Amino acid sequence: MAIIVHHLENSRSQRILWMLEELGLDYEVRRYARNPRTMLAPPELKRVHPLGKSPVIEEDGAVIAETGAIVEYLVERADGRLGPPGHRPSVLRYRHFLHYAEGSMMPPLLALLIVGRLGLLGRPARKPVQGMLDVHLDWLETELAERDWFVGDCFTAADVMMSFPLEASVQRGGLDASRPHLMGWLNRIHARPAYARALERGGPYAFA
Amino acid sequence: MAIIVHHLENSRSQRILWMLEELGLDYEVRRYARNPRTMLAPPELKRVHPLGKSPVIEEDGAVIAETGAIVEYLVERADGRLGPPGHRPSVLRYRHFLHYAEGSMMPPLLALLIVGRLGLLGRPARKPVQGMLDVHLDWLETELAERDWFVGDCFTAADVMMSFPLEASVQRGGLDASRPHLMGWLNRIHARPAYARALERGGPYAFA
Repeated sequence: MAIIVHHLENSRSQRILWMLEELGLDYEVRRYARNPRTMLAPPELKRVHPLGKSPVIEEDGAVIAETGAIVEYLVERADGRLGPPGHRPSVLRYRHFLHYAEGSMMPPLLALLIVGRLGLLGRPARKPVQGMLDVHLDWLETELAERDWFVGDCFTAADVMMSFPLEASVQRGGLDASRPHLMGWLNRIHARPAYARALERGGPYAFA
Repeated sequence: MAIIVHHLENSRSQRILWMLEELGLDYEVRRYARNPRTMLAPPELKRVHPLGKSPVIEEDGAVIAETGAIVEYLVERADGRLGPPGHRPSVLRYRHFLHYAEGSMMPPLLALLIVGRLGLLGRPARKPVQGMLDVHLDWLETELAERDWFVGDCFTAADVMMSFPLEASVQRGGLDASRPHLMGWLNRIHARPAYARALERGGPYAFA
């Protein structure tokens, strides 16, 4: 039976479609639209998982949430493909980025979004929050100066995890051509055929 | 050689000391104090890792950052102790909470902190952000109605990961006796001898 992906438009779940395309696994997409006023996920998603968030996948009766956990599940499901290359430092780097993407990089991006919604009221917080994000972008820029992909010479699931925070950084975090290694990496991921196929399956995506 | 833990006061890194105590591994603590005005980590931490965050551990020349990645490293280092029990649904739950603690629960707590610093200006954002956190607290309360620990009948590293977001929720997220299962779980973790030993090693901790 195919894996079911509960996919919210313009969201973290785009990565799961991409991951499935990279691995060539069979899947079915259930699409959800955001509330056009609040931009939040619709209540239907709460019927799938009480947190009401996307992505969530289902397979053989198991409901799996949380992007990092889903990505680990899919790597295992594909006998380790797109997992870390075998040597020790790569395993450590892989694990780091798998947790880092959502654990460290998304929080300042969420904070920027909230502060941005406050308009003028949020202005005093904008600079310090942008500063928090800049520390990440500066570090990531130096990391990619030495290698094409986040873990090493090969594309891995860590690159899939990192895509959404970096795409969101272009959209609202000030990431631009002044950080050429990061922009080069974004060009490389967007040029992958599986990325393009995932966009076709998922529908409109404002971040690519 | 002992594992070196770079420990920032009143921070996520308290979990790493606790984890090491639970596993009975040998470690050395390097303490860092927050800047008393900004409450941010001191610049010395940037010498350990460019992100300048805590926790970071060092062993055999490897520098490992990101709480979830450190916890996975320590479980592996201890031959799988405190990792998931062997059956499939537990493995999935374990992985979920390992990513969820920082990836889903901490972002609204960070947002609450930032919105709180804005004082009156941040007031319009306080209610929606608290609402985001309440969805998590409500769900977690039902999860612990069925079991003593997050993964199942046994204490695991997933409980260690969940401690900081739930302690922070008591401090600034409105978690109180109206959610008795979560408060019961907090009492259970705080009663563990290893938790108490980690407090002694780490110094003052405002969240326990």
